Amino acid sequence: MLDVPSFACGAWVAPGPNARPIESAITGNMIGRAGDGRLVPDDMLRWARNTGGPALRAMTIHQRAEMLKALAKHLDASKQALYDLSFDTGATAKDHLIDVDGGIGTMFVYASKGRREMNDGYVYLDGPAESLSRDGSFQGTHICTPLQGVAVHINAFNFPVWGMLEKLAPTLLAGVPAIVKPATATCQVTQAAMRLMLESGLLPDGAVQMVSGGLGDMLDHLGPQDVVSFTGSAATGLHLRSHPNLLRNAVRFTAEQDSLNAAILGPDAGPASAEFDLFIKETIREMTVKAGQKCTAMRRLIVPQPLVQDVTEALVGRLSDITTGDPRDAAMRMGALVSQAQKQDVLARVGDLQAEARLIARGLTPQGPETGAFIAPHLLICDDPDAAHAVHEVEAFGPVATILPARDMSHAAQLANRGGGSLVTSLFTYDAEVALGVLRNSAAFNGRLYINDRDSATGATGHGAPVPHMVHGGPGRAGGGEELGGSRAVLHYMQRTALQGSPRMLGALTGRWHPGAPRQSDGPHPFRKYYEDLSIGDSLTSASREITLDDIEHFAHFTGDTFYAHMDAEAARRNPFFPDRVAHGYLLLSFAAGLFVDPDEGPVLANTGLDSLRFVKPVIAGDHLKVILTVSQKTPRSSAYGEVRWHVALLNQDDETVATYELLTMNARQSADQTRKTT
Amino acid sequence: MLDVPSFACGAWVAPGPNARPIESAITGNMIGRAGDGRLVPDDMLRWARNTGGPALRAMTIHQRAEMLKALAKHLDASKQALYDLSFDTGATAKDHLIDVDGGIGTMFVYASKGRREMNDGYVYLDGPAESLSRDGSFQGTHICTPLQGVAVHINAFNFPVWGMLEKLAPTLLAGVPAIVKPATATCQVTQAAMRLMLESGLLPDGAVQMVSGGLGDMLDHLGPQDVVSFTGSAATGLHLRSHPNLLRNAVRFTAEQDSLNAAILGPDAGPASAEFDLFIKETIREMTVKAGQKCTAMRRLIVPQPLVQDVTEALVGRLSDITTGDPRDAAMRMGALVSQAQKQDVLARVGDLQAEARLIARGLTPQGPETGAFIAPHLLICDDPDAAHAVHEVEAFGPVATILPARDMSHAAQLANRGGGSLVTSLFTYDAEVALGVLRNSAAFNGRLYINDRDSATGATGHGAPVPHMVHGGPGRAGGGEELGGSRAVLHYMQRTALQGSPRMLGALTGRWHPGAPRQSDGPHPFRKYYEDLSIGDSLTSASREITLDDIEHFAHFTGDTFYAHMDAEAARRNPFFPDRVAHGYLLLSFAAGLFVDPDEGPVLANTGLDSLRFVKPVIAGDHLKVILTVSQKTPRSSAYGEVRWHVALLNQDDETVATYELLTMNARQSADQTRKTT
Repeated sequence: MLDVPSFACGAWVAPGPNARPIESAITGNMIGRAGDGRLVPDDMLRWARNTGGPALRAMTIHQRAEMLKALAKHLDASKQALYDLSFDTGATAKDHLIDVDGGIGTMFVYASKGRREMNDGYVYLDGPAESLSRDGSFQGTHICTPLQGVAVHINAFNFPVWGMLEKLAPTLLAGVPAIVKPATATCQVTQAAMRLMLESGLLPDGAVQMVSGGLGDMLDHLGPQDVVSFTGSAATGLHLRSHPNLLRNAVRFTAEQDSLNAAILGPDAGPASAEFDLFIKETIREMTVKAGQKCTAMRRLIVPQPLVQDVTEALVGRLSDITTGDPRDAAMRMGALVSQAQKQDVLARVGDLQAEARLIARGLTPQGPETGAFIAPHLLICDDPDAAHAVHEVEAFGPVATILPARDMSHAAQLANRGGGSLVTSLFTYDAEVALGVLRNSAAFNGRLYINDRDSATGATGHGAPVPHMVHGGPGRAGGGEELGGSRAVLHYMQRTALQGSPRMLGALTGRWHPGAPRQSDGPHPFRKYYEDLSIGDSLTSASREITLDDIEHFAHFTGDTFYAHMDAEAARRNPFFPDRVAHGYLLLSFAAGLFVDPDEGPVLANTGLDSLRFVKPVIAGDHLKVILTVSQKTPRSSAYGEVRWHVALLNQDDETVATYELLTMNARQSADQTRKTT
Repeated sequence: MLDVPSFACGAWVAPGPNARPIESAITGNMIGRAGDGRLVPDDMLRWARNTGGPALRAMTIHQRAEMLKALAKHLDASKQALYDLSFDTGATAKDHLIDVDGGIGTMFVYASKGRREMNDGYVYLDGPAESLSRDGSFQGTHICTPLQGVAVHINAFNFPVWGMLEKLAPTLLAGVPAIVKPATATCQVTQAAMRLMLESGLLPDGAVQMVSGGLGDMLDHLGPQDVVSFTGSAATGLHLRSHPNLLRNAVRFTAEQDSLNAAILGPDAGPASAEFDLFIKETIREMTVKAGQKCTAMRRLIVPQPLVQDVTEALVGRLSDITTGDPRDAAMRMGALVSQAQKQDVLARVGDLQAEARLIARGLTPQGPETGAFIAPHLLICDDPDAAHAVHEVEAFGPVATILPARDMSHAAQLANRGGGSLVTSLFTYDAEVALGVLRNSAAFNGRLYINDRDSATGATGHGAPVPHMVHGGPGRAGGGEELGGSRAVLHYMQRTALQGSPRMLGALTGRWHPGAPRQSDGPHPFRKYYEDLSIGDSLTSASREITLDDIEHFAHFTGDTFYAHMDAEAARRNPFFPDRVAHGYLLLSFAAGLFVDPDEGPVLANTGLDSLRFVKPVIAGDHLKVILTVSQKTPRSSAYGEVRWHVALLNQDDETVATYELLTMNARQSADQTRKTT
């Protein structure tokens, strides 16, 4: 028997006498028990808020990203144990890849995005500074800081590992402790993954806890710094979002609910087309992967009337080969639903659908034990989808899909929208006009719009696959929430705050130099300083250099850039922006580098790039150019070096700005440089 | 009598027999009636969804921004009429500036941000593309499209014009029709502004409607494409967010509620400091502007214990001069509360506060009519703010504030957080360490953190002033919602959708070329095409040019950039990134321009800038360089020209990418060029 303990306040708590049973999806036998430990929700919340939160907030964003990477590596090394446990949930070896490897992969992506796309520090910088006064003395910028509460994750049974990790990754990266409540039916797998993470020693105390069984009255104790992230059915979602305490405290609530997702076949995608084949292939995959127990699975197959016959024949043919049975048997294409109760529910929902739709095909009779939760794929067709309601509203959370004939693409979009909000709609067409029509009509009803065609077939990740880079969640029936979507998900666990003050103050608080803030220009040339020694605001004002007409001529002929604005005074004067022949923008950049570089070998390793260059005033022959170079931001990149972002202003002889940009250099760390020189 | 009609389904509907009375804040007399017209909520929703929505969605984002600008200009020309009406709401001439001019200014900012910061087209592009497959055949990007429902704006009484415009601006820019429900007490002013907008003829049919009086059962008819944006009290907010139909349909709901905002004085800000004076000045302003009826007003003045005496004396002194009376009288510093009912409520709440705090000062006795809603400013002090509850929870929505002594800054932040989530906390300090401490402790409890000091004093917009550039809204008690914040607010009325497909398909759907998508390179050099004639994907592959050591030497000496990596083979080889002496990055950019420009006078007017330049592989002497230039995006900038964004890839002799960037040019429109040449 698997006794699945909770992990509360730093200790494992075994199930109690009233624990909930866990059954094998394959045999129907009870294989474990969960919950009814001596959990005190208030203690768990306090442990998270007072121990886990401060520990996570004491780390910088990049430190937390490093922690995620190490956790993902640790899990990756031990994933066989998770596979072994997962068969009894009804999942096949292929399903394990989605759940276990998919979850670990998501964690790796967040580790990487945290370091590559987010600034380091205690405060995340959300967007550019805004000037809020004419004199520049008062500015604003948006920052995000970790919520000082706890994230309660209420997860679905279908992906016990991915479902935990796809929420834990952004939560921990945000710096917020989590209490994970897996669905009881598969919590033994979640618990095993949780145990691996805890045993790694990588997580600070209080960062994660886990409830096996029920949450008790925990939701009554949540406050305005807490978050509830729910994945599951629309009914449970409604129950949770209506919770009086969550409403009273405006507790952040996000829901990702299974929805009546649609797949649309384009009118151009006839039986001979690559897109037709892709549609058939993905439909079969969506019906069978995880035995159709996916919140993103295709439920409604919207097919142009002239193609209905071909689609039906192709699907019926493919379904006739689908084997269902014990997932340990590699010959079985499909495993079991998670439980007998789930099986009964799916069969009842198929009954509801049959009031409006005809059952036209089933896969082969399941081969597993009678007591297992096996069910063959069911394909239906609804002849009057406009009059129908159940096909747009009732979800059979299993290997069940219904064909809906559409008169045209506008009708197809209209039918898709009848789902009242979906996680995803997919479209199989090569015709961009067809796709544009569906987008204009239906994008607003979907969290994701997936288009597959002959060009994308080799790389497409699949209708049903949420990827960490892209938003997962949809409006209305799909819950109205968002998960994933790159760093967007991290912000779901942070508070965005508009920060206003003087440039000096904003710079000190954000670690990013703001134009107008003081500069430090005493001391050595900033190119002579190691990464560690550079401070925000370290600055250099260069000497001044005249730009002559000879310079312009010479540069033009040397580079080949004889564009008329530089070479032809008459033509330049006809141009609405220029008073006369102007210096090349790249001439200015090149001379600027000549003015500011300190040429000798030193800590500056390379100019790696440049952002946001804007030429704001033309420079003509006889103008003088000087440069102010200021350290604006620092980002660690490795143990050997870090990236320095420099604010660069090019000024003319009247101190008018002629161009601004942000320069990127890679600078050695002193410690690493010493190591390098001695080896 | 002012009969305030509703505007429903394109027609004005006069109040009915059971209309609600509107009283003068100055005299208490009934001056108008509102509501109880023959409104059918379902008809209004249908009119918005079926007429207004499609009309707005047929415009591009920039067209909608132009519409906002024209609307703002139209209102600006007629604002005297709004001032005249506003006195009877109790507002002074200064208050009018905040409400009327502030509202119009917000609309101007959204008009400007829409054109400067958002792409043009029917689909808003939210962030960069993400590669989702190794072979690049499948990519993703996020788009936002207008919700296909209606935005119901439920507004507060205190800012009848700003309160409408700050929500209408982002809603209309998003392409979503609105139904505005102003608070009855001041709806005559809202109605006048609404009438001006409607009479301008600038708004398409169905884009806006207005309900005077009650909404009836409108909320029962909202669905998953609709939004409710509420501003008002926490009690009403809770009532609305708990509405069963909103919960059932996951109707987007955002609330901005008055909260127990705090102002914190730094320990460094003694009586001789500029920051002390700013604190006193802003406190008096917050207590008196709009007679303290501001959701952002300072309610709690958190003062370090040693400074409490000085602060008290300064505030009591300043309050002794505050005049209250008929706002038409320029000698009156403060006008009236909005109504007798409001006055009674504020006095009752002051009573609640007095259970925990002592009243220490009042302004001069009000001079207005006995029947007016006048109330002098009330200043209290709470000796034990840790034990107190009411001062952190009970809002007297009038000219009322309470001093809370703090032991230290950590205690100050803790007290501020006792508000359970605020719209804004302000801080008066010159010490960045003090500010950093408050930020780390309290930012997560605030939608805005406002820091004023000697440097920002001339430009600071004020503790209580939401600005359109910055987020307005706060967690918990403040409602948990967000408004404003630049283009962020536009997205509150759009659906974000993850769009996945081949680069070709994504390009066709977004109007932005994605790397990997097809290019068109037949036809003339793209520099010879007018703005209108350039297509996304128009491309040029240049000839190839060798980079010689002479070129590097020559460039170095010409520009002065003799950085060691270009000049010193030994030093370059010691560098972790370079195999040998490398060409200057700016040499590559300059040669690239020489390779791709078509030099003759033509539609390309100027190179205006460059974004996201990354050097990805070093170029050494003997390498060859060629350029692929591709039109990636077009943005109209005026009737005479538009901005073209070019994707630029620099390749070496092995077709390896050595650098990529986005180049910006301004290109003439053919129509404008012809006009220019003939005049």
